[in-house]
Amino acid sequence: MSEDTSYSPGDLRNTGMRLKHDREWDYELDRIVEAVDARDAETVGLQFPEGLKRRAPRVADDIRDLVECRVLISGQPCYGACDLDTYLMKRSDVFVHFGHSPMKETDKVIYVPLFSNVDVLPIMEEALSTLEVPSESSEVGLVTTAQHMNRFDEMRSFLEERGYRVRTRRGDDRLTHEGQVLGCNYASADVDAPQILYVGGGKFHPLGLAMEHPEKDVVIADPVNNVVTLADTEKFVKQRYAAVHKAMDAKTWGVIFCTKIGQGRWDEAEAILDENDDAYLITLDEVTPDRLRNFDFDAFVNTGCPRITTDDGPRFHKPLLTPGEYDAAVGNKPLSEIGFDTFHGTW
Amino acid sequence: MSEDTSYSPGDLRNTGMRLKHDREWDYELDRIVEAVDARDAETVGLQFPEGLKRRAPRVADDIRDLVECRVLISGQPCYGACDLDTYLMKRSDVFVHFGHSPMKETDKVIYVPLFSNVDVLPIMEEALSTLEVPSESSEVGLVTTAQHMNRFDEMRSFLEERGYRVRTRRGDDRLTHEGQVLGCNYASADVDAPQILYVGGGKFHPLGLAMEHPEKDVVIADPVNNVVTLADTEKFVKQRYAAVHKAMDAKTWGVIFCTKIGQGRWDEAEAILDENDDAYLITLDEVTPDRLRNFDFDAFVNTGCPRITTDDGPRFHKPLLTPGEYDAAVGNKPLSEIGFDTFHGTW
Repeated sequence: MSEDTSYSPGDLRNTGMRLKHDREWDYELDRIVEAVDARDAETVGLQFPEGLKRRAPRVADDIRDLVECRVLISGQPCYGACDLDTYLMKRSDVFVHFGHSPMKETDKVIYVPLFSNVDVLPIMEEALSTLEVPSESSEVGLVTTAQHMNRFDEMRSFLEERGYRVRTRRGDDRLTHEGQVLGCNYASADVDAPQILYVGGGKFHPLGLAMEHPEKDVVIADPVNNVVTLADTEKFVKQRYAAVHKAMDAKTWGVIFCTKIGQGRWDEAEAILDENDDAYLITLDEVTPDRLRNFDFDAFVNTGCPRITTDDGPRFHKPLLTPGEYDAAVGNKPLSEIGFDTFHGTW
Repeated sequence: MSEDTSYSPGDLRNTGMRLKHDREWDYELDRIVEAVDARDAETVGLQFPEGLKRRAPRVADDIRDLVECRVLISGQPCYGACDLDTYLMKRSDVFVHFGHSPMKETDKVIYVPLFSNVDVLPIMEEALSTLEVPSESSEVGLVTTAQHMNRFDEMRSFLEERGYRVRTRRGDDRLTHEGQVLGCNYASADVDAPQILYVGGGKFHPLGLAMEHPEKDVVIADPVNNVVTLADTEKFVKQRYAAVHKAMDAKTWGVIFCTKIGQGRWDEAEAILDENDDAYLITLDEVTPDRLRNFDFDAFVNTGCPRITTDDGPRFHKPLLTPGEYDAAVGNKPLSEIGFDTFHGTW
C-alpha cells in the first residue's frame, strides 16, 4: 500500500479526486440493451455525474453497437440519485442514470451504480488500530457509499472474523441498500453500537455521520486516498454557528425551494413563508452563488440539498442556512439545538 | 447631454451596464391583478431577467398588497422572452415574465416589457451627422429593442420631420412589434433602405444587425451610454473564423440541443447527428463553459441561443460553433459563406 504523505488526521478536506487506483466501470450494457428491446425504445437518454461525463461518448458508442437507437446525453449538472434530468427522462423511451444507486427505479428509469473496483480490505486492516478492540466493545456499525456497496458483505465478514459484532440497517426509503449512506441521509448508521466504521472516500459523508451521531465515534477508512481518520466536527460546527450569527440580523429572507425531482421539501418552505412576512419563495434547480447574487435578500434558507448549504455555503454572498439553522437565527429554537440537515423520503 | 470619454468609434464592447440615467419601471400591476382576479389565481409566478431580480421582493409585496395570493419568484437565470421558466409557469395560476416583450402571450402568461424612460431624441439628433442626409438617400430603416419600443412612433416622427422616408417592418413571429429586433432575429431590418438606424444600448444587437445586413450602413444611436457609432464587424468576423479554423481538426463533436422553451432547434441538431457518426447529442438548458468542461469533445455546435455561441464563445474550453459555422468546419460549405446565426419562429 502506498503512503499518502499529505494525510493529516481529522482533516476531512481530502476528496477522492486524486485517485491512486485505476478504476474500471461496469456500465451494465446488457441490462440497458434488454430494456431497450423490452420497451421497443427508439431513444435512450443517458445521465452521468460530473466526474464521469467524459465517458459519455464511449458508452453511447457501445450502446449503439449493440442495439439500434438514438442516444441523448444529459448536459445538466448531476450530483445524486435525487437529481434525475426530468426533461430528458420524459423525452427518452429508456433513461439510464449512471453513478448512483436507485432512489426509485421504474421500467423506464435504470440506475447503473458503477461500483468501484478498489480493494477495501487493506485500509480496513489499518482501521483496526483506531477501532475499539472487540474485548472492550464488540459492536461496530458499518456503513459505506453506493460506490463500494458491492463489497459490503466482504467488509462485514472481515470485521466478524476479527471478533466484532457488526450492526447494520437499511435506513429509510431514500436508501437502496443495507449499510448505505447518502450525503443527506445517515439513517443506516442508527444502530446499537458505540462506534461506526465508515468505508469510503469524500469528506462530506463522514462529517454528516459524525454530526448526526455525536454519541458515537466515527472511524473513516478511505480506500481511495488510503487514509484512516477520526471524524472531527469542530471546524464544521464553528462555520455553521458563524453563518447563523450573521443571519440573525437579516430583515429579508429568500427561501429556496429546489425544483429537482428528489430535492424538493415544500412543507419546510411553506412553514417558513407562513410564519414570516419578510420571507420570499425562490424556485430554482441548481442552487449556486451566481444565481443568488442578483437577489437582494439579507439571508437565504435552502430547503433543497443540504450539502449545498453546508459544504458550499461559505461561497455565497449572504448567509445560506438550513431550515433548522433558520429556526435558530429567528429565535424559534436555541442555537445549541441545530443539527445536521438531513433529507428523508423520495418524491 | 453628458460626455462619455470612454467612447471609441466602432467599439461595440460597451454595454448598458453603467447607466447614466435613472430608470423607473412600470410593473403594470393593474394588469397582473386583473389576471389574478379573472383566473381566481392562488399562486402567481414572477420571472425577472438578471438585472431586475433584485426588484422581485418589492414587486411581490406590491402584488400581495393588492390581491391575496402566494407569490413564487423564479431563481432560474433568464435572458429573453424565449426563456420562460416552464417549471414555475406550470405550477403557477398566473405567470408574469418581466423585462421582455411577448413571444407568445396566453391567458396564463403575462409579459410585462418594462419600457425604459430614457429620452431617445438627443442621441438621435447626434446621429444625424452620421446618417446620410435625405438629399442623397431619403430611405432609412429604423429598428430598436423591446426596451425602447414605447418611443418608436416618436423616433419615426423625428426622422420624418427631418426629411427621411422611414422604412420599417415587423419581421416574423418571433418579434412582437414593428421595428423590433432581438439578439437572434433582425428580420425587421430587412427593409428597402441603404442605411439602418438602430436606437438602443448593448453591443450584440447592432453587431447582429451589421452581420445580417452587410450591404447596409448600420448607425448605432445608444441613448443609454450616449454614444453614436458605426457598427464594425471586423473583429467579430476574425474571432468567428478563428473558432471555425480551430474546429476543423475536431474528431468528435458535442451537438447541443437547448431545452429552454424558445431556444430549441431540433431539426438543426438532428441534421448534424444524421450526417456525422462522431457527433453526439447533449441536452441542457443553460449552456455555460462549466457545464461543457466535463465533456471530452473536440468541438461543440450550439443549436440553442446564437448569442451564447458568438458572444460567450471564447470563454469555452473548446471551439463552440453555430450550425452554419459547423458546416464550414466540416467542409459542407465554404468558410466565406458563414453568416450570423439567427433564430426564427416561436415554439
